[in-house]
Amino acid sequence: MTAAYYAAVDWGTTSFRLWIIAEDGAVLAERRSGEGMTTAAKTGFSTVLEAHLAAVAAPAHLPVIICGMAGAKQGWVEAGYLDTPAALSTIAAGAVAVPDIDRDIRILPGLAQRDPQHPDVMRGEETQLLGAATSLGDGRHLVCMPGTHSKWVRLEGGKVTGFSTFMTGELFDVISKHSILSHSIADAQVFSGEHPAFLAAVAAACANPALATNLTFGVRAGQLLHGATATDAKATLSGTLIGLEIAGALAAAGAVDSVCLVASGSLGALYRAALTSLNLSPRIVDADEAVRAGLSTAAQAIWPL
Amino acid sequence: MTAAYYAAVDWGTTSFRLWIIAEDGAVLAERRSGEGMTTAAKTGFSTVLEAHLAAVAAPAHLPVIICGMAGAKQGWVEAGYLDTPAALSTIAAGAVAVPDIDRDIRILPGLAQRDPQHPDVMRGEETQLLGAATSLGDGRHLVCMPGTHSKWVRLEGGKVTGFSTFMTGELFDVISKHSILSHSIADAQVFSGEHPAFLAAVAAACANPALATNLTFGVRAGQLLHGATATDAKATLSGTLIGLEIAGALAAAGAVDSVCLVASGSLGALYRAALTSLNLSPRIVDADEAVRAGLSTAAQAIWPL
Repeated sequence: MTAAYYAAVDWGTTSFRLWIIAEDGAVLAERRSGEGMTTAAKTGFSTVLEAHLAAVAAPAHLPVIICGMAGAKQGWVEAGYLDTPAALSTIAAGAVAVPDIDRDIRILPGLAQRDPQHPDVMRGEETQLLGAATSLGDGRHLVCMPGTHSKWVRLEGGKVTGFSTFMTGELFDVISKHSILSHSIADAQVFSGEHPAFLAAVAAACANPALATNLTFGVRAGQLLHGATATDAKATLSGTLIGLEIAGALAAAGAVDSVCLVASGSLGALYRAALTSLNLSPRIVDADEAVRAGLSTAAQAIWPL
Repeated sequence: MTAAYYAAVDWGTTSFRLWIIAEDGAVLAERRSGEGMTTAAKTGFSTVLEAHLAAVAAPAHLPVIICGMAGAKQGWVEAGYLDTPAALSTIAAGAVAVPDIDRDIRILPGLAQRDPQHPDVMRGEETQLLGAATSLGDGRHLVCMPGTHSKWVRLEGGKVTGFSTFMTGELFDVISKHSILSHSIADAQVFSGEHPAFLAAVAAACANPALATNLTFGVRAGQLLHGATATDAKATLSGTLIGLEIAGALAAAGAVDSVCLVASGSLGALYRAALTSLNLSPRIVDADEAVRAGLSTAAQAIWPL
């Protein structure tokens, strides 16, 4: 077996993923669990990490590179923020070493946009960006990273010039669970990005973003008056919030040369369909591959072979 | 004492209000409780109503006029909807009598906008409108009735030509309680409509409605980066959602001769400040007086003296 070079960890709020990477870049082992920051803050970050390393029989002194919420103030060791405009090449140099521990563990910093009119932060997505940027080349790119708090990043010549967060995923979740619409969508089936109600809602919200919270109420009224199905209702809520997000991201970005979507799975498919329906022809980068590529770039900068 | 003429009831989802009205229009007695539709659907609508009537020693055969959720499908007796365009003068004729009961009880219908692109419903606000309309006179009016589900109504010559519901109040509630912003605003103090963060957020959201869910995330980022207070955070969330609503309502309404605000209490004061800051100079009608005036107009049509 090729020798292990380092362990790469994407440590989010509610998820933990670890890969053991060989010197030739091969993935030697992988672990996934729900022990995100929220859990690890109680059981201990070191305990969680060492248990996963032991489970894959990682060498005792294998170095570890980490991105994500482990570096938040309420995480393991605070890794601060790089301020925008920020060259992605400076992320590795901003890594913070975990002190008083018998292993070389580095946590990557987040990015902060300190403009008082548009304060914004990210933590974890900067590493996805670092991984995705190599495939984008020159020009002005608008990079969409959908999720609980979707990030839209303006990237120019390897530098983050600005970014905007939209609470789309979290709003979808709290509206689905806690508002009057919870009754409307309780029995919804899984839907795809080609669902007509989804695409109609994307178009309506993108064309009239000011009507977003009216369009969401229309989900309820549409069921009362026209017997719309629960799946239509859920697709309409999803499409409205995603259409609102896209309208806002385009308005904030100004002119760009390309739109890139860094995403995975069913959420990635919804955004791809939404962006395509708006003629934005996004380039697609797999989010899992992007974060691993970003961690790899940082690891090679910190521990050159 | 002047003889009691009828009892007027505004029966919402979570609130019950009853007034005993004399032939000369005087309020002889008043009751308020939390026994809205949700509670009454369990304990019995008749039981709740008769207990309040007994508490004010109302005559055994005093008729009762009711508006609100008691007329919903999941309420006491379904009172259906009048379809828009709807003359307010036809609301009383749409009242439904509660059957099999030893008292003359009528429940007023709601309004429905069946346009498949803009389905919408109201129940209760049509009675406020009926009461407010007498003071508005001719012309094209845009009437704002803020609340859990804010209603913006286009009123022309005593006729509702269309309306739009915005989920503002409910979104404020679920975001405050269930999203990441719950931490940001947990220790907020009461704020007024003159609070600078509130007015700045109204202006920002109204100018850039597409950025609404970005502006709400800015509440969190602003605390992380600039130490904004919990009160600033709550005022910003409120102002963002209200500014988004106003932008949408104005876009949906087209040209109008006047903007009228039918509201009470602290919520009314926030909307008044928001509308005034946008140079909309709203006429103000007290919501409590409006619903009583609307119930009175309907009662006099059903039981003429």
